[in-house]
Amino acid sequence: MAASSSLTISQSLVGRAISHHGSADRADHAAAALPGFRLSNLAGRSLESSSLRMASRLRPAIHRALPRATVRAAAVEALEKTETSMVEKSVNTIRFLAIDAVEKANSGHPGLPMGCAPMGHILYDEMMRYNPKNPYWFNRDRFVLSAGHGCMLQYALMHLAGYDSVKEDDLKSFRQWGSKTPGHPENFETPGVEVTTGPLGQGIANAVGLALAEKHLAARYNKPDMEIVDHYTYAILGDGCQMEGIANEACSLAAHWGLGKLIAFYDDNHISIDGDTEIAFTESVDTRFEGLGWHVIWVKNGNTGYDEIRAAIEEAKSVKDKPTLIKVTTTIGYGSPNKANSYSVHGSALGAKEVEATRQNLGWPFEPFHVPEDVKSHWSRHVPKGAALEAEWNAKFAEYEKKYKEEAAEFKSLISGVFPAGWEKALPSYTPESPADATRNLSQQCLNALAKVLPGLLGGSADLASSNMTLLKMFGNFQKDTPQERNVRFGVREHGMGAICNGIALHSPGLIPYCATFFVFTDYMRAAMRISALCEAGVIYVMTHDSIGLGEDGPTHQPIEHLASFRAMPNILMLRPADGNETAGAYKVAVLNRKRPSVLALSRQKLAQLPGTSIEGVEKGGYIISDNSSGNNPELILIGTGSELEIAAKAADELRKEGKKVRVVSLVSWELFDEQSDAYKESVLPAAVSARVSIEAGTTFGWAKIIGSKGKAIGIDRFGASAPAGRIYKEFGLTVENVIAVAKSL
Amino acid sequence: MAASSSLTISQSLVGRAISHHGSADRADHAAAALPGFRLSNLAGRSLESSSLRMASRLRPAIHRALPRATVRAAAVEALEKTETSMVEKSVNTIRFLAIDAVEKANSGHPGLPMGCAPMGHILYDEMMRYNPKNPYWFNRDRFVLSAGHGCMLQYALMHLAGYDSVKEDDLKSFRQWGSKTPGHPENFETPGVEVTTGPLGQGIANAVGLALAEKHLAARYNKPDMEIVDHYTYAILGDGCQMEGIANEACSLAAHWGLGKLIAFYDDNHISIDGDTEIAFTESVDTRFEGLGWHVIWVKNGNTGYDEIRAAIEEAKSVKDKPTLIKVTTTIGYGSPNKANSYSVHGSALGAKEVEATRQNLGWPFEPFHVPEDVKSHWSRHVPKGAALEAEWNAKFAEYEKKYKEEAAEFKSLISGVFPAGWEKALPSYTPESPADATRNLSQQCLNALAKVLPGLLGGSADLASSNMTLLKMFGNFQKDTPQERNVRFGVREHGMGAICNGIALHSPGLIPYCATFFVFTDYMRAAMRISALCEAGVIYVMTHDSIGLGEDGPTHQPIEHLASFRAMPNILMLRPADGNETAGAYKVAVLNRKRPSVLALSRQKLAQLPGTSIEGVEKGGYIISDNSSGNNPELILIGTGSELEIAAKAADELRKEGKKVRVVSLVSWELFDEQSDAYKESVLPAAVSARVSIEAGTTFGWAKIIGSKGKAIGIDRFGASAPAGRIYKEFGLTVENVIAVAKSL
Repeated sequence: MAASSSLTISQSLVGRAISHHGSADRADHAAAALPGFRLSNLAGRSLESSSLRMASRLRPAIHRALPRATVRAAAVEALEKTETSMVEKSVNTIRFLAIDAVEKANSGHPGLPMGCAPMGHILYDEMMRYNPKNPYWFNRDRFVLSAGHGCMLQYALMHLAGYDSVKEDDLKSFRQWGSKTPGHPENFETPGVEVTTGPLGQGIANAVGLALAEKHLAARYNKPDMEIVDHYTYAILGDGCQMEGIANEACSLAAHWGLGKLIAFYDDNHISIDGDTEIAFTESVDTRFEGLGWHVIWVKNGNTGYDEIRAAIEEAKSVKDKPTLIKVTTTIGYGSPNKANSYSVHGSALGAKEVEATRQNLGWPFEPFHVPEDVKSHWSRHVPKGAALEAEWNAKFAEYEKKYKEEAAEFKSLISGVFPAGWEKALPSYTPESPADATRNLSQQCLNALAKVLPGLLGGSADLASSNMTLLKMFGNFQKDTPQERNVRFGVREHGMGAICNGIALHSPGLIPYCATFFVFTDYMRAAMRISALCEAGVIYVMTHDSIGLGEDGPTHQPIEHLASFRAMPNILMLRPADGNETAGAYKVAVLNRKRPSVLALSRQKLAQLPGTSIEGVEKGGYIISDNSSGNNPELILIGTGSELEIAAKAADELRKEGKKVRVVSLVSWELFDEQSDAYKESVLPAAVSARVSIEAGTTFGWAKIIGSKGKAIGIDRFGASAPAGRIYKEFGLTVENVIAVAKSL
Repeated sequence: MAASSSLTISQSLVGRAISHHGSADRADHAAAALPGFRLSNLAGRSLESSSLRMASRLRPAIHRALPRATVRAAAVEALEKTETSMVEKSVNTIRFLAIDAVEKANSGHPGLPMGCAPMGHILYDEMMRYNPKNPYWFNRDRFVLSAGHGCMLQYALMHLAGYDSVKEDDLKSFRQWGSKTPGHPENFETPGVEVTTGPLGQGIANAVGLALAEKHLAARYNKPDMEIVDHYTYAILGDGCQMEGIANEACSLAAHWGLGKLIAFYDDNHISIDGDTEIAFTESVDTRFEGLGWHVIWVKNGNTGYDEIRAAIEEAKSVKDKPTLIKVTTTIGYGSPNKANSYSVHGSALGAKEVEATRQNLGWPFEPFHVPEDVKSHWSRHVPKGAALEAEWNAKFAEYEKKYKEEAAEFKSLISGVFPAGWEKALPSYTPESPADATRNLSQQCLNALAKVLPGLLGGSADLASSNMTLLKMFGNFQKDTPQERNVRFGVREHGMGAICNGIALHSPGLIPYCATFFVFTDYMRAAMRISALCEAGVIYVMTHDSIGLGEDGPTHQPIEHLASFRAMPNILMLRPADGNETAGAYKVAVLNRKRPSVLALSRQKLAQLPGTSIEGVEKGGYIISDNSSGNNPELILIGTGSELEIAAKAADELRKEGKKVRVVSLVSWELFDEQSDAYKESVLPAAVSARVSIEAGTTFGWAKIIGSKGKAIGIDRFGASAPAGRIYKEFGLTVENVIAVAKSL
């Protein structure tokens, strides 16, 4: 460790040897770290290396820190002004930009940015490769603030680095209507923010997805002489993220997959909203992560131990077969004399008085939002550096394109999101004579057909591949040693799976991740699915066993309210195809909607191929599959979705035999139907026809809007039951006979 | 270890020294186990101890097992018939009851029961204290099959033990309509089943809740001379449960709380639905659990190592300050010559041919569902034993009642669910002159008032106590060393929190667990909440920050579709109170609904106390808070919930100034309103009045049923935004002005 002996002492003191953290043995990790700045042996790092050397020259010679009992006092004592280096000045700039923005908004979380400013500085100023003027440059390092409430850290860093999305005015409109600096990081608002975080644990799982995408693309497209895919994924997560189950799920997979270029900083500050983490979080995170298979490093002085942080990152980079967790012990709200190391600095503005005291304490004489000229000038190199990095990569790619034409074309499609022309022709089509089949099987036909024409389609199931029917037959398993393959095995980790897919989708526009489980278990991953919708990640959710039709597994496994609950969610497509053509249509829609996730509800049981269904119909969300009336004036409209469309069609046949004029409508996606013109909607569901019966093996909640006050909805407004599917259908009245009876009652 | 040297060898072979399990050092745990059967030093165990001794006499002298490569062959070789002991005969009875039931149903999961029959036998026949004829006897040991798909294991054990809920006919109607033996364990169908499992990870978290309840009640009611609360909680979880994040959350808390009487068996069989767990699950579970703070024991031969299993349980009981994980390495489908140790035995019937081969292999000449007479006779002691255990406890409690009158009365209320008369009078009431306040604060007033009169009210928040306002001021924190307290600190573990509360609620009818987070984060715990609804656990979900009204945190934190998504869920009450009286009403409803969970959506922002609101109104779900019309014939009905009821009331005031006849309806709970008589509903929302406007800061999805085809719904059908709340309300049209404008447009 390239540190003075005084640093070593302070480290062990600041490290707070609390027994329950049980990780004194982590110290030797840091001690074993590389003694200086090793130049990376990867290509294209020359610019970064020089900046590293520069930063290393500037690092402060003396660090001070204090024992546990006086940890707050550590923040109180100002660093000696005369020794303030550029690094510390930059770090304090970051702290005060966060303090000032939160203060102006009178809302936000200053504590994390104040504590994590040192690691943030080292990442954005010394370690990461990016182009501020093109936040979408493909080969950039990815950064994820999993502890998203600390977003002012990222905004401050992006501001210093020269991103156009975070100008001074944007900092001043933090958390205001229409600003680019919302209360949590949102990729769709702020170019340069990779993913949308805030809900805890999501970010680290997104980061696993980003790192998976890098490893996958690197394996597919890099050549021994030309590494065109080569970046790190960095994340900062806090105690809150660590407590969330999703983080454990995703981190277990990260180690299983050997994602060596994933480097996560654990902001170990011992404070969460309810106070000291002692009250609810006394596990040894280090031991747990070692059990998961991560490389673990402990930086005991995250407040001023710049060299420790640097050395930890270098060590992490040297471990290529495992992801690394760098536990960085910090003081939340570092610098605030009266609020540091307490929950009061976590999620509220410091208040004018304490801001002033903090300015005094850290020796910061500047006005709010001021960036000192020398700090500005120090950071100004990132714009030319970023441009050079991108230009260098572009040149390399031009060479690659010459040498590896086919791969380059495919790769361009992946990073641009422009699909090969005519891809949709690969989708299968069916006639009423085609054999009856479960839509989960028809889904597998679509997936396998699409995988041949869409190079970015990859995914898998949460340990239900053979039930969800999601295996791509021409590919093997994405694993540590076979990362070029496209079948991802998520294990029984639905929530992690969803968030990992969000990361994959947001890595490159042409990547189309799909993931699968039983429809009812969307409940396990709903938080990730909502973020798919919010952050515009076009994940395809392949959800089989979509109703009581799954039979014997019983009510724990039978969705009831799930269709309604996704129809109610913004910016997500809920699709429930009825047969082969509709399943193909659902996939067409899902692939085309790259900024809107799709949920496909698919049957376990066999369904007939129905006359009248079509891909085009699905694209409209609702359409007529059969009608024996004329003049847009049927006596009765029967409306079904998925497996119940067949029941509606059979009931219509019977009623027509009695001379009734009956229309049958498939309402495969309410959202898409809603988006059609009023004229089209009137042509399908004419206002004058109030005799409407819907049938769907799920809650009737929401159907009133479709059937009107005079219509009747046949559905299930209770939990299901364990029995063979046919029996449950009968007991619950989801039968041709009941549709006919209800229709006649109108 | 009290085992022959041949056993030691076979153990190490069966143990399959796979490097990724990295737990060779666990062997010494087993080696350190107690050499024989130690009599428990806890009271009331005499019967059990004698049964233990009997079982120990009967244990087989020789065990055979084979190295990894021939693990399946291990199942092939039949145990030598002449040495088959009663234990093995009982274990095989369990196996074949499971095989036969699954075969008859042609549906189900034989693999787990076949592999876990030995631990199941030892638990139900040797270790556990229960009364088969009174499954609800308070002081019974609790058993949770977290790997619920293996429910035939539990049904077979309960059948042998003499539970009335699982007679031979029930086994024969496994997974059939109306049977008491559904496809996964369901407490509401099968007395003797403690909780509802199947969705993986839920059960172990329920078990944490059961063990918490035991520790809490023991601390409150036990006396040095009289331990009336004293039972273990046992669970079996599989690889699937271990992968789920919820299990990690709950297990982290179990160790934090020092739940020493929680003993979990990890069925380490290396097989999940997708095949060998190698493909997605290579972490060291042992190391992770040590990191979490558990005591970990590895039983290497779970197939025939009866003594190892017994010794592990005794060791677990001797560790009183930590929960214990007993990793039991088993062979899934043990006994099936061609399907053991493969995924094909996980979730499908073996098929007639393989059933026959398994009968041959295990030397089982009997007809399907046959229980040999000696096995029957062996198990027959559990009925008198259980009766004696309960009688003994009843006698002890009678003594307790004499000595500790007050405690006994309270305790009886807790175990009976009969609340102290007049408890509801403790609820606060408000007048329009009472100060405006956020319903989250009013909720805290209710919680604190109720905690004084309801001894079973306990709960807390997922690290948001000071935001959710859930602290009970007269109590301290439930912690390892202060288990008598009633504020539970869940950390940032929403999913675990919900499932733990299910366990608490199902432990004793008088326990009323509540738990809290931001409303949007119900997405993290929805699977547990759905099981609350399904398993009839009356958990109170205190969900604050219930709309865009939370302001700056932005769309990741702002619920939109959540009200609708719970209204669509069966058997759960969605309550959105508007002020103090409605909040009190919501709590009254929530407390009274012991078999139906309640979700209370509460505001972050201050709300006025409205004229016309009432507890009685809330109990009806929807009611008129003001009206200037007569004859049940207003010109206009404005309908609001929660924070928007105030907007509706103000809009009505304005419209009335213009001479309009306007009714304002609070629709605080759609489910309760639905349950009212048609006459009552007509008195609130007369069919003849079609001019209806609803206002709610959430999706309009579902409102069509209330407002009819001519009404208009004001709501939010997009994601929220980060800005001060007032601004978002205005931008989204949730204003008095807009209500008036929309009303006039009708």
